[in-house]
Amino acid sequence: MYAIDAYDVARRSGMGGRINTIMQVCFFKLSGVLPPDEAIDKIKKAIEKTYGRKGPEIVRKNFQAVDNALDALHEVPIPADNENGKPLPPVVSPAAPEFVQRVTATMLRGKGDLLPVSAFPVDGTWPVGTAKWEKRNVATEIPVWDPSVCIQCNKCVNICPHAAIRAKFYDPALLEGAPETFKSTKFRSRDFPDQLYTLQVAPEDCTGCSLCVQVCPAKNKADPRRKAINMEPQLPLRETERTNYEFFLSLPNPDRTKIKPEVKMSQFLEPLFEYSGACAGCGETPYIKLVTQLFGDRAVIANATGCSSIYGGNLPTTPYTTNAEGRGPAWSNSLFEDNAEFGTGIRYALDHLKDRARLLLHRLAPQVGDELVRNLCIDGPLDEAALKVMRDQVAALREKLVSIDSPDAAELNQIADHLVPKSVWIFGGDGWAYDIGYGGLDHVLTLGRNINILVLDTEVYSNTGGQRSKSTPLGATAKFSMGGKEAPKKDLGLIAMSYGNVYVARIAIGAKDTQTLNAIREAESYDGPSLILAYSPCIAHGFAMHLGAEQQKLAVDSGHWPLYRFDPRKRDEGLNPLTLDSPPPKAALARYRQNELRFRALEKLNPEKAHEYAEVAEHISRARYHMYRQMAEMSVLKPPGHGADEAPAEPSASEVADN
Amino acid sequence: MYAIDAYDVARRSGMGGRINTIMQVCFFKLSGVLPPDEAIDKIKKAIEKTYGRKGPEIVRKNFQAVDNALDALHEVPIPADNENGKPLPPVVSPAAPEFVQRVTATMLRGKGDLLPVSAFPVDGTWPVGTAKWEKRNVATEIPVWDPSVCIQCNKCVNICPHAAIRAKFYDPALLEGAPETFKSTKFRSRDFPDQLYTLQVAPEDCTGCSLCVQVCPAKNKADPRRKAINMEPQLPLRETERTNYEFFLSLPNPDRTKIKPEVKMSQFLEPLFEYSGACAGCGETPYIKLVTQLFGDRAVIANATGCSSIYGGNLPTTPYTTNAEGRGPAWSNSLFEDNAEFGTGIRYALDHLKDRARLLLHRLAPQVGDELVRNLCIDGPLDEAALKVMRDQVAALREKLVSIDSPDAAELNQIADHLVPKSVWIFGGDGWAYDIGYGGLDHVLTLGRNINILVLDTEVYSNTGGQRSKSTPLGATAKFSMGGKEAPKKDLGLIAMSYGNVYVARIAIGAKDTQTLNAIREAESYDGPSLILAYSPCIAHGFAMHLGAEQQKLAVDSGHWPLYRFDPRKRDEGLNPLTLDSPPPKAALARYRQNELRFRALEKLNPEKAHEYAEVAEHISRARYHMYRQMAEMSVLKPPGHGADEAPAEPSASEVADN
Repeated sequence: MYAIDAYDVARRSGMGGRINTIMQVCFFKLSGVLPPDEAIDKIKKAIEKTYGRKGPEIVRKNFQAVDNALDALHEVPIPADNENGKPLPPVVSPAAPEFVQRVTATMLRGKGDLLPVSAFPVDGTWPVGTAKWEKRNVATEIPVWDPSVCIQCNKCVNICPHAAIRAKFYDPALLEGAPETFKSTKFRSRDFPDQLYTLQVAPEDCTGCSLCVQVCPAKNKADPRRKAINMEPQLPLRETERTNYEFFLSLPNPDRTKIKPEVKMSQFLEPLFEYSGACAGCGETPYIKLVTQLFGDRAVIANATGCSSIYGGNLPTTPYTTNAEGRGPAWSNSLFEDNAEFGTGIRYALDHLKDRARLLLHRLAPQVGDELVRNLCIDGPLDEAALKVMRDQVAALREKLVSIDSPDAAELNQIADHLVPKSVWIFGGDGWAYDIGYGGLDHVLTLGRNINILVLDTEVYSNTGGQRSKSTPLGATAKFSMGGKEAPKKDLGLIAMSYGNVYVARIAIGAKDTQTLNAIREAESYDGPSLILAYSPCIAHGFAMHLGAEQQKLAVDSGHWPLYRFDPRKRDEGLNPLTLDSPPPKAALARYRQNELRFRALEKLNPEKAHEYAEVAEHISRARYHMYRQMAEMSVLKPPGHGADEAPAEPSASEVADN
Repeated sequence: MYAIDAYDVARRSGMGGRINTIMQVCFFKLSGVLPPDEAIDKIKKAIEKTYGRKGPEIVRKNFQAVDNALDALHEVPIPADNENGKPLPPVVSPAAPEFVQRVTATMLRGKGDLLPVSAFPVDGTWPVGTAKWEKRNVATEIPVWDPSVCIQCNKCVNICPHAAIRAKFYDPALLEGAPETFKSTKFRSRDFPDQLYTLQVAPEDCTGCSLCVQVCPAKNKADPRRKAINMEPQLPLRETERTNYEFFLSLPNPDRTKIKPEVKMSQFLEPLFEYSGACAGCGETPYIKLVTQLFGDRAVIANATGCSSIYGGNLPTTPYTTNAEGRGPAWSNSLFEDNAEFGTGIRYALDHLKDRARLLLHRLAPQVGDELVRNLCIDGPLDEAALKVMRDQVAALREKLVSIDSPDAAELNQIADHLVPKSVWIFGGDGWAYDIGYGGLDHVLTLGRNINILVLDTEVYSNTGGQRSKSTPLGATAKFSMGGKEAPKKDLGLIAMSYGNVYVARIAIGAKDTQTLNAIREAESYDGPSLILAYSPCIAHGFAMHLGAEQQKLAVDSGHWPLYRFDPRKRDEGLNPLTLDSPPPKAALARYRQNELRFRALEKLNPEKAHEYAEVAEHISRARYHMYRQMAEMSVLKPPGHGADEAPAEPSASEVADN
């Protein structure tokens, strides 16, 4: 057996957290596939070929990593007997359910081929909430909370791609039986006085990306380099924090009806998407987590092929999970090209089931009572309190139904849950939304149904290795397209606005989390198609992922990613539907582009072209904002039934909020 | 043998020119498929089922036609011998070329199944210019010219869907040998003094739609019901006008380099699309004819599946043809879903061949001379004079090449024609552009290549019988969709503008022919993707097709079809790229909609819904124009290299021309 501290080698070689080259060297050194010297030679040639275009610095660092890897690799002698050693720990906790023990753990152990067909669910469904048993322990460092510095803003919880840092507030009495190392402080809240607050890390699920530390706005006055959370080595903390996290999970989740729609409060809502296999620092998953916090207990999700379908349903574990009542998102992936249609079909089916349930309910009114019928047929967006009432009514209905002996009652009992409004979501990346699935996306936008489309826009085909899409910005390099994209990014938001009846928003959670929260809530409440374009930093961009939120801010400030919301409901009132949520570009676009290798790579390869693209891109970002602003200031004609039909309304205020 | 004057029956029954029901009655009366009485009964039931929703008046007229058909059908006794009769005329003229005689005529005779495989071209190409041999003689009445009233505006030539009415100006000396009945008058032109002018009908190719008479603006002062052209029975005129038309064709076409870009003058250019099988009064074909007049001698056309692919390549005859030099459009149909890509692929291929030819030319510069090389490598849009020079230079080059013994010279000789710029056109209907082929259309718009997309927008799937597309307007009924379209027409033009680098125009030849001509010329001259949305009246709209031009005017005046041009070249100069070419709606949209059965049908079926749709549609058409106008008045930032980059330019004048 051989061992290497590859992360240490990577750090020393200037490779940050990238260990792929290092592990490759070890493989060839030990496997004997090729004579080691020849293999090392070939690896170095491959490095030159792969990274040569990205500049000599990258090549030098990789060479350094290769050399350091050989030095750091060392043999671990295995004693003849293991009498004094420890037993191998179980793959999953003994607390895991039977299916996880029998099937999931077998696959995690690498023995999935031994499972008989009979081990799998017969109908293709797959148990949810199993990612939590995986305990990958991939982080060398994890965040550690300092309650004395914390301002309880929950921004760390909001940005965490893996739902591995969480906050709760609770009655002090519940602290009884807490582990000794469990931390707690007074909850700063007028609405919830005399409560305690805890920020807790899931030590074995954290990937160590440190986005949480980066976004933490609280400074430790005693040591300005430290914040309210700070990265510390995981190993010494693993056991204690595991116990602390288990206790944390046992604390109750808040009453959803009492949570105000603010970023801070939203982060007390239980995430129903956790510990996915997404990359450390992933820019997509915070949006998905937020959707599950807000609507997860009644969400049905259609997922396009792409990163989100891989980390969303990554065999053998599933990150989507349920709450204590057993409610959680239903999720499925169809094809790359038909996801918008797939999700819209789900909407049609759910609407049909709701209509059918209402029909049966009306037929059974004499037996179940008119009041129940009336209460269960309320339309329109319902708040958490109304949803709770409705669910209670469904339970009351069910109690009555079991004592009614009729086929109608039996059928209604089966589908009564469909009386509670479902939240249909269509997730996918830009490769789906801008390219391969665009024809279908365009089509479903015109159908007027209540669907919520979330585009996780990484501006590139992330999952297949970084090929360009129509969302890729002007001049950005991509796999098979090292000359830089010749066309500007397709303006999918502007296109969607052309339909008039589509809610459209462009958001960036790391830049303006309140706008993200508002847009997602507005989109969901709109009784029609909604399209949300969510800026998602990605490893394909070529920058330090722990700086994702800063880079999102720069994307917005430079005009690369203007924020807006287009709400058709405003136009129905004679107001301009477009609200710009970010000010005119105040930073040079070049500052944003300089941070990312996808742009910088062209400067090595073709400096003239790179300069030209940079100049044109700068102009386009300013010209586009200039156009948006004028669009937001347009007057709109009042629709029929709103007084004077012919006279234009006064121009609405431009509503450009300062960031 | 039985005969019926079905058009007479149709006229007497109030069916206008519709004879399908009448001929169906005759078929069942004579065929014996069913007992005649039972068949008539079933036909009437089918009429009630098919047209019941369109109102009792339509049903009554059809019943009347059925009854009148039975009365008008009469037997023609055939004598035992034909000694005193005339021989059957040949299917095609003896002047037709060998292929037409051998293959086309056999198919026209209904004997195509007897042709051996060896009769057909081996490579799948098909001879062009064969529609002219078909001589369908379908018009019962044709237009007859009155030179004393004519103002020589050529609007009749412009609107003719079948290129069956034409104008020429010529030297008086050429009249020598003209048939006695050939009409001629002094050409009113300062640029071409002392010339004669003739307006000539192709009597056997005219379909009798009478659009030409409707658009004629010249009134006969002696008889205000008459114009400069008037419909007269065809049969008495057939022989003389056939001879006159043959003589007319023998007159020379004008020197293209001397034709100004005006509607009147453009109609002296030879159409290279003639006598197609399109419906009488077709709203699509005038656009195609105009494109072939302007660019046909160097056009390559990719055609989407739909009406235009049927009448464009309708076996056994082909309406696309060549000029006297043998130059004409190359045309092909691919699939419904890939036509934009098909046409763009053609563009890539042509560009490659041009680049290859230039490369070879440069290699051969020492032998052919630098001046020739320079002249044959000129870029950019070329006018007719420059094109003529270039073609002469290609001829000169070819002469030199034959004396050079090298593989390069031989290859260049093969592809030298590609040095002359080709004009790539992508034709199709709204079913293709808005729906089935939209994903591809969207994609090619972003590729920046010089393609010209002409969407023949009938707002419905015309060729398959009238199903709705995303181009169908709000509340319009369509096959399988009699409840009326719930969503407004998709704004494909606005979507295309979002790319910034696409030339976009919305045109209606019957409403504003000058704007149509300008838009088509600008689109072609733009070195990038162009998209033209061409309003095309269609029999599926349910109105009297001879009133097509009036209905186009009403579409524009009511705001149903606003006219505009969006030229990215203007933005490059710091000007607003959008020019509105029609004024704000001045007629009620209801006036436009009342004329068409597709809208009226819903009034019978669901008057409340019809009223609601009408009201919303009226609002949308006004609100949309209101938005367009503000878009046209926006200021745009000057691009780099045009002085002050940051300061917005002064708003351009709104440029709304009065119609």
